[in-house]
Amino acid sequence: MNPKLENLWEEVRELTLGTTPQIDRLHTPPTPLQFLRHYLSQNKPFILSASSATTLQWPATTLWTSTSYLLHTLSSSTVSLHLTPSGQADSLTPHPSNPKSLCFASAHVQRTLFSDAVDAINASNKKDLSTGFVAYAQQQNDCFRGEYGALAGECDSDVAWATEAIGGLPEAVNLWIGNELSETSFHKDHYENVYAVVTGEKHFVLLPPTDVHRMYIREYPAAKYIYSEETGEFKLEIENPLRHVPWCSVNPYPLPENLEKEMSKFPLYYNGPKPFEVTVKAGEILYLPSMWFHHVRQTPDSRGLTIAVNYWYDMQFDIKYAYFNFLQSLPAPQEPTSHNPLTNENASDEDENNREESAFL
Amino acid sequence: MNPKLENLWEEVRELTLGTTPQIDRLHTPPTPLQFLRHYLSQNKPFILSASSATTLQWPATTLWTSTSYLLHTLSSSTVSLHLTPSGQADSLTPHPSNPKSLCFASAHVQRTLFSDAVDAINASNKKDLSTGFVAYAQQQNDCFRGEYGALAGECDSDVAWATEAIGGLPEAVNLWIGNELSETSFHKDHYENVYAVVTGEKHFVLLPPTDVHRMYIREYPAAKYIYSEETGEFKLEIENPLRHVPWCSVNPYPLPENLEKEMSKFPLYYNGPKPFEVTVKAGEILYLPSMWFHHVRQTPDSRGLTIAVNYWYDMQFDIKYAYFNFLQSLPAPQEPTSHNPLTNENASDEDENNREESAFL
Repeated sequence: MNPKLENLWEEVRELTLGTTPQIDRLHTPPTPLQFLRHYLSQNKPFILSASSATTLQWPATTLWTSTSYLLHTLSSSTVSLHLTPSGQADSLTPHPSNPKSLCFASAHVQRTLFSDAVDAINASNKKDLSTGFVAYAQQQNDCFRGEYGALAGECDSDVAWATEAIGGLPEAVNLWIGNELSETSFHKDHYENVYAVVTGEKHFVLLPPTDVHRMYIREYPAAKYIYSEETGEFKLEIENPLRHVPWCSVNPYPLPENLEKEMSKFPLYYNGPKPFEVTVKAGEILYLPSMWFHHVRQTPDSRGLTIAVNYWYDMQFDIKYAYFNFLQSLPAPQEPTSHNPLTNENASDEDENNREESAFL
Repeated sequence: MNPKLENLWEEVRELTLGTTPQIDRLHTPPTPLQFLRHYLSQNKPFILSASSATTLQWPATTLWTSTSYLLHTLSSSTVSLHLTPSGQADSLTPHPSNPKSLCFASAHVQRTLFSDAVDAINASNKKDLSTGFVAYAQQQNDCFRGEYGALAGECDSDVAWATEAIGGLPEAVNLWIGNELSETSFHKDHYENVYAVVTGEKHFVLLPPTDVHRMYIREYPAAKYIYSEETGEFKLEIENPLRHVPWCSVNPYPLPENLEKEMSKFPLYYNGPKPFEVTVKAGEILYLPSMWFHHVRQTPDSRGLTIAVNYWYDMQFDIKYAYFNFLQSLPAPQEPTSHNPLTNENASDEDENNREESAFL
């Protein structure tokens, strides 16, 4: 490990974030000034309890627990449905023509009637993946105000304390309807994110931007799943022309049989400070600061759905962002292989994306 | 030069600070939200025009231009007077027992009647230094609310937009009365600083915290001037026990005959982006963000005095501070001596404090 990087990871926790995996929990909504002063300006997350979040007053909170209500209201709506073989979209998977290396796979996206989307999500919540796909209704293009416009009156169009603090309305509002098999791999967004869960639960694993080296961001060839309704099978196609996507290499929930290997490949992640973890329940709101790495899983409500709305506000590209870019430009420290016999496996050709640079300090 | 550090210096300017030596000028006071959003959170300075700063409504603005008013009001006040041979307090000067190296010299501080302090400041404004000393009435210990308490009603006890944004009153309010010979060497403070000039002008040279390597901060032995009224002479005494102070090595205004040598000793300062420069005139207010390096000179009013009040608010030790400490912990890059023949002089023993570490990238 590198002592200067480790100091940074520890210091940001000791100074402001806290040294446990918990984030701040607020029981009253912040004023705009409090939000700016204690959270946005400090790039620090918090969760707002259901009892004090205004979500409880949203018509959505009661109305959306009824699938028949949703089907009725959106009966003429066409929505974007993401299909993947096992629930991981925008994530790393073996390269189709060289399974010893990885590629970055995007979901098959199709526009479909809302009722068909719900059917697909409901059908694909089997742990045995017997449907052959997992469906996730989402689109990060302001879909809540577009595709789901018929629901727009049923929750706030913005989050008052965030809008006033930031000085502008959300750039995008997105709706997410999925089941427990859908998960989102570690990544960061260049937005201030206010994330409200309407029904079900979302489970976030969070790392601050100071911990960028712990994510082992590498360039992966971009690929796309193509789903055939006829055969019910996916093809994974590398994009042509070839395009590379920088993406986090770490999966926080590896299969038990892979854990040792993962720990040897990503020692900065596994040996550094514990990530922050937070479950956002129905009615709760998470402030997820810009540039934070986040991995998301979900637990559905009794009917099998998790529904969430998130508000993306413009971030400031300020001194924090400049510091981040500088930090990220420094090559990751190399692990001395002699310290950990497991790392000998690291030299395998399984992951040819492993292009660590030499230690910088 | 080091490309990664240079990128950082340039990026913070391109993103947020601007690429000219000017800082933002506001013609209306910011609201607390605007101050937090655009300046404090972004660690970005601005100057507030006299016409819109509330300083014009301060009784101080008219009353303090009369020395007899000040003498009358403070007739029974004892104040801290800083005496130095030539106006540089808290600055680097040749080591008393080894003039080829430097030490960090603090002023001789004496408590004196206010009238004696004014006499000393007025007497010591000769460019030929014929008085043998330069006097500066100041003390960074909340002196405005202490020693100068008799004036406290004549300007605001805090700055409303800063107090509301920061969520607390100033930790210290300091008064500064000096003449054109007093200057303050490059340093940074762990406070958010709101600096109001009442009469005369202050000239600031500013560098953001991202530029820390350009300041060549090194450890210097602490020393103190001891002034003898009998002989009218200063002795410079190294503190016993020996104590080292980390201090900026760069003087932005070297004598013309020393310029080439200074440029060869401090190439990152002289070859990097131009520092920000701002003159704060009577009635204007400068927001000087925490951790910014600043060098201060002054021009007096027609009677020969510059009077200023500054408000120190607590800073947040947040992710920006953690990033700064990390950046500072990286050894400065070394200049390749072959690139600049002047740097050959750098190897002289004149400055044994020159303890550059090896390049880090």
